[in-house]
Amino acid sequence: MDQIKVEILKLGKQAKVASQVCAQLDSSQKNKILQAMAKGLQADQNDILIANQLDFANAKEAKLSSALIDRLELNSARIASMSEGLAQVAELPDPVGRNLKNIKHQNGLLIDKVAVPIGVIVMIYESRPNVTADAAGLCFKSGNAVILRGGKEAKHSNFAILESLLRSGTAVGLPEHAIQLVETGDHQAVSELVKLNNCVDLVIPRGGEKLISTVSEMATVPVIKHYKGVCHTYVDASADLEKASSIVINAKCSKPGVCNAMETLLVDRVIAEKFLPTALSVLAKNNVELRGEAESKKYFPELKLATEEDWSAEYLDLILAVKVVDGVDEAITHINHYGSHHSDAIIAEDKAVQDKFRKQVDSATVYINASTRFTDGFEFGMGAEIGISTDKLHARGPMGLEELTTYKYIIEGNGQVRK
Amino acid sequence: MDQIKVEILKLGKQAKVASQVCAQLDSSQKNKILQAMAKGLQADQNDILIANQLDFANAKEAKLSSALIDRLELNSARIASMSEGLAQVAELPDPVGRNLKNIKHQNGLLIDKVAVPIGVIVMIYESRPNVTADAAGLCFKSGNAVILRGGKEAKHSNFAILESLLRSGTAVGLPEHAIQLVETGDHQAVSELVKLNNCVDLVIPRGGEKLISTVSEMATVPVIKHYKGVCHTYVDASADLEKASSIVINAKCSKPGVCNAMETLLVDRVIAEKFLPTALSVLAKNNVELRGEAESKKYFPELKLATEEDWSAEYLDLILAVKVVDGVDEAITHINHYGSHHSDAIIAEDKAVQDKFRKQVDSATVYINASTRFTDGFEFGMGAEIGISTDKLHARGPMGLEELTTYKYIIEGNGQVRK
Repeated sequence: MDQIKVEILKLGKQAKVASQVCAQLDSSQKNKILQAMAKGLQADQNDILIANQLDFANAKEAKLSSALIDRLELNSARIASMSEGLAQVAELPDPVGRNLKNIKHQNGLLIDKVAVPIGVIVMIYESRPNVTADAAGLCFKSGNAVILRGGKEAKHSNFAILESLLRSGTAVGLPEHAIQLVETGDHQAVSELVKLNNCVDLVIPRGGEKLISTVSEMATVPVIKHYKGVCHTYVDASADLEKASSIVINAKCSKPGVCNAMETLLVDRVIAEKFLPTALSVLAKNNVELRGEAESKKYFPELKLATEEDWSAEYLDLILAVKVVDGVDEAITHINHYGSHHSDAIIAEDKAVQDKFRKQVDSATVYINASTRFTDGFEFGMGAEIGISTDKLHARGPMGLEELTTYKYIIEGNGQVRK
Repeated sequence: MDQIKVEILKLGKQAKVASQVCAQLDSSQKNKILQAMAKGLQADQNDILIANQLDFANAKEAKLSSALIDRLELNSARIASMSEGLAQVAELPDPVGRNLKNIKHQNGLLIDKVAVPIGVIVMIYESRPNVTADAAGLCFKSGNAVILRGGKEAKHSNFAILESLLRSGTAVGLPEHAIQLVETGDHQAVSELVKLNNCVDLVIPRGGEKLISTVSEMATVPVIKHYKGVCHTYVDASADLEKASSIVINAKCSKPGVCNAMETLLVDRVIAEKFLPTALSVLAKNNVELRGEAESKKYFPELKLATEEDWSAEYLDLILAVKVVDGVDEAITHINHYGSHHSDAIIAEDKAVQDKFRKQVDSATVYINASTRFTDGFEFGMGAEIGISTDKLHARGPMGLEELTTYKYIIEGNGQVRK
């Protein structure tokens, strides 16, 4: 076996052993460790910032995009926010041991469905170093062992964060190998990790198209994809156009670099003439670059013509694709075809139209008269999230502590046998 | 593209379109169709039996094992039971549209978590032709389109069942392509099916080691494995030996050919001398072939020596592996290492020992003082099951109608934007 294979198998076996220890920790032990790690991050701020400067300098030299460099950067405020995140996770209810269902069999058997940790989780992510602390905290609180694999552009930052977490966690009883980070930057590490069926229970890839497709093609371990957000807002003929304008501006401009930001605006032909000229000029004034088909261009000549790629693009930037459609049916077809099943909104007052959209749009979160920007574990009352699942199995949409557990059935009897 | 690729892609696309129609059907429409299909199976009994005779003759000629031939065989009683199964599914509550959670955001947004169908399900199974009717009924009731791929040894039976379902279903509104069966027996069909990420949402392979590993290695679509049951019963020093005897006999002998039957008996060294001679001689009188290590043989000389393979074997027959262990800790280690995470039982009166077993055995169903034979969707109050998941994600243990759905979040507002 080559060296990377050996190294990854070792991480997997260590994680498997650690997961059995983590699963048995009680809430107060876990919370004490999380609080210590939160304090540790603050205390180790300087070390982390020095490591981050290294990544930052390398990224500039490698001429990475400014969006990527921005996501990479840490500062006091971002470290404080990571630390606060861990402290908040300590405050959240323990998802392990929840009683999910109780059935009493007529023969007296008590059948209980109880939440338990998943086991070993592999988290594969890009650039943002805060994911290292967030994912570690959430996986640990939910009783899992985690193997982290961050982007190579953030490697010094990720290591500094991990070292801090381990130092302060271990001092108060963090089990050995509960949180591990893959050392090698080699791509082979990923292909080995996602095939460790005897050690790994779940792989969560969080990132762009290439990362997601590479992981799902290679994996034999179950995968929950946290894929891009190609989010739509459809403005129906029955829309209240004032609501529509403020929602559209919010969905595009309030934070364009996140996955719940709108990327495509669909407008009902019936109100295109009334809505588009004003709406698009306000967007343009907010520095949004507009791309659309010929029909939209009629209402806003500065608009650039879109290519086929624009309809499935996640810009994560002040760019918006615009399309005039033939009512709610074409809007639904467009969304189900080009979207990423993440977050899609309709602005309409007509209940029948709302209802059709709600039922037929096949996305994790479907909005009626509100901004797609609300798709977020915290806004959904989960306290925190490890990401947003664009898959349909196990977890869909924001994935919090409860979604990081599975369940088992405990059946208690006094000698029952089956007839 | 070659012919099989074209054919499978066509099935996938048809299923995708059908799934959108199925998802919108209301409960009464679905139940009417299920009842018609139940009646149809009875009416078409002769056609189905004739087709089954063909498979039966081919199987005998091909010298398949008697267990396989038994699973293949249909008769009036088995057809009646398939028909009754469909009628029962019609009576079960509709799992689609269940209200799973409601959150009111402080800004007035109403966030509802609602059960929806998964979409397109591919079911890959072996020999038993009744799975064709069972899986079709359960997937349809839960609003999914299904593509069935049965074993080639049952192909005439499966086709006759499918034809019957389609004839009687279509007459009362079964959507086109809601239920499809792969025609070609070529193995390539499976490798194409499990890579149709744009059309298929879930693959359920149900069968033995080879089927399961082939499917999970090739699949890029999410998989929920219904793998073998290597079920254990551990008899602790604190056991009530009368309970232990009757549970052991029931778990092994009441129906040895099913996945929840016991395959390995583990006995605490402390009570081995007291328990094993009688227990093993009763098992032997029930025609159970016993295999074990040297220590067990001391208590029952007729026992054959086991090989390493015996500890992970799913015999599905009157064969039992027997091992003396050093208390509950060795039992747990053995089960987590050799078992298939299906159903495992402890017989013990000591609460601390029960508790350790319950918490540390990593299986879908864990029994205390009862027979593993109860692992079954019907016994667990689900009404019916599509199989028993040995995976941890989405569904674990018996998988019924609710487990054949996912959810989406519907967020209703009146113009809310995110600050």
